[in-house]
Amino acid sequence: MKVLVFGLGALGTVYSCLLKNRGHYVAGIDNASVVETICCDGVKISGIWGEHEAQLDQVVVSLDELSEQDYDIIILSVKAYETAKVTQSLQPFIKTNSYLMLAQNGYGNYEAATQFINEAQVILGRVIFGAETINPGFSRVTVIADDVILGSPKQLIDQQVLEQFAAQFTEAGIPTRTSTEIMKFIWGKIIYNSALNPLGAILEVNYGKLAEMESSQELMNQIFEEIFAVLSAAGQSTLWPDAKAYKKVFYEQLIPSTGGHHASMLQDIQQGRHTEIDALNGAVVRLGEQHGIDTPVNRVITALLKAKETMFLKS
Amino acid sequence: MKVLVFGLGALGTVYSCLLKNRGHYVAGIDNASVVETICCDGVKISGIWGEHEAQLDQVVVSLDELSEQDYDIIILSVKAYETAKVTQSLQPFIKTNSYLMLAQNGYGNYEAATQFINEAQVILGRVIFGAETINPGFSRVTVIADDVILGSPKQLIDQQVLEQFAAQFTEAGIPTRTSTEIMKFIWGKIIYNSALNPLGAILEVNYGKLAEMESSQELMNQIFEEIFAVLSAAGQSTLWPDAKAYKKVFYEQLIPSTGGHHASMLQDIQQGRHTEIDALNGAVVRLGEQHGIDTPVNRVITALLKAKETMFLKS
Repeated sequence: MKVLVFGLGALGTVYSCLLKNRGHYVAGIDNASVVETICCDGVKISGIWGEHEAQLDQVVVSLDELSEQDYDIIILSVKAYETAKVTQSLQPFIKTNSYLMLAQNGYGNYEAATQFINEAQVILGRVIFGAETINPGFSRVTVIADDVILGSPKQLIDQQVLEQFAAQFTEAGIPTRTSTEIMKFIWGKIIYNSALNPLGAILEVNYGKLAEMESSQELMNQIFEEIFAVLSAAGQSTLWPDAKAYKKVFYEQLIPSTGGHHASMLQDIQQGRHTEIDALNGAVVRLGEQHGIDTPVNRVITALLKAKETMFLKS
Repeated sequence: MKVLVFGLGALGTVYSCLLKNRGHYVAGIDNASVVETICCDGVKISGIWGEHEAQLDQVVVSLDELSEQDYDIIILSVKAYETAKVTQSLQPFIKTNSYLMLAQNGYGNYEAATQFINEAQVILGRVIFGAETINPGFSRVTVIADDVILGSPKQLIDQQVLEQFAAQFTEAGIPTRTSTEIMKFIWGKIIYNSALNPLGAILEVNYGKLAEMESSQELMNQIFEEIFAVLSAAGQSTLWPDAKAYKKVFYEQLIPSTGGHHASMLQDIQQGRHTEIDALNGAVVRLGEQHGIDTPVNRVITALLKAKETMFLKS
């Protein structure tokens, strides 16, 4: 395959390194400071999938520097708030047989990307392994909760095409399967992150403690109830019949296995970066507004998180 | 006058020191660690009212150690969550000519105290000078926003009695006047504190920054609107016709003069103490529930503050 990885952060580094080592053509794009490091040192990963390193075929800061114009798949691994801008710029690179794969967080990426790219060429990915950046181009894979899942929300892509990509990723070392219900999996991750990530960032405490303290547990339960009310009004379903069923899974399965984790949003804030709050609780608030459902808890949490973001923001 | 000061924190230290120096009989009560320091060193104050020190007539840890049984006035300067327990214990000390003066924060102190003490003997005080504890029994007066105001919410105390107490306090060095609308002044302080204190404690930022950042400004405006809706439903009025009028005063007068301040609640939390959240936003939520007004912003802020309190709480 010819692969372009757009965004060589923790996740993009993992994809580019493992796909290159499997023999694919891999180009990468990121900003100057990242590209400079990678051009000299290549990309590296460590952690639960072992140690790997690779020299990519090309690493650039701008699309017009790319020597290859035709890619089988472009993997988008940028922050949710960049999706619209980046997918617009990618339009010329989406040929008849090209696919754009969104490997991002939160709600709204598919909606933003398909403003610019034909829906029949946009693959939505639910990536639920964890990777952290050690240095630019050097990631550590810390945890894998489940396979990556690929799908087309409206079933506009041949199942065979999706299966082929899943097989290629799996062969490269990233366990991947497909689903005809990709949005249900996407929402599963959003619900989990909307409860834990902003509260963990605001209170600066790990996931287990949030689930243990009465006041934060109550807030998370209200966040769940608001999200399920919004999804019900929006005609979207999840893997669980209702908030009560989700809570059972959350407290009995998800929290015990991730209790020691800290919110990645807190790292983003402390390093002066924007967070993806608008693709999590902020997206819930907007979707609620569109369907006449008030979401006061998500609203207040979003505002507080944004205030904290403002306090640290560098640019 | 014979005065008992119940609670020798920052405020109780100021009252006991200045009243003793003016020649009154002053006894004080607090826990063992505070009493031990004061018995040796006396009480001291510094700051904008100058430096003063005094040896109190008696300092005890328990009411049954008091050698004097008849007090003209008992000044209650304990945290709001202790009011009910303490006023119940004070019942035997409220003689025919005794008064209990509540010099505390938040809503609910008068309501709690008058469960145990005759309303015609309970003076409600709005104290709006700031004092901080340097050591037990040693306070610094940092700011004075306005006179202390004394009143009886239902006008059950002779105006002359209130005037006499106000004159005694003023002569001792604490500018004090009376009002027939004491609740309006009490609410003024509660509204101000409900917006700034918990947000300042959650975000760990000063009052000026809270007013400056768009997201926190929006949250404070919503807190104001909820409080005015609750007060309107509860038939209580403030010094301002509506939330809009209050906001003008808040942003144009109050914030410019207190922008550098940090939330006292943050100190309470960091030192492992309980906060007075239940007498501020928590009281707004309860009063709202009694009158059918939902207060989601105050509710979420209360829950978050309590979660942060739990994280640090020592006992």
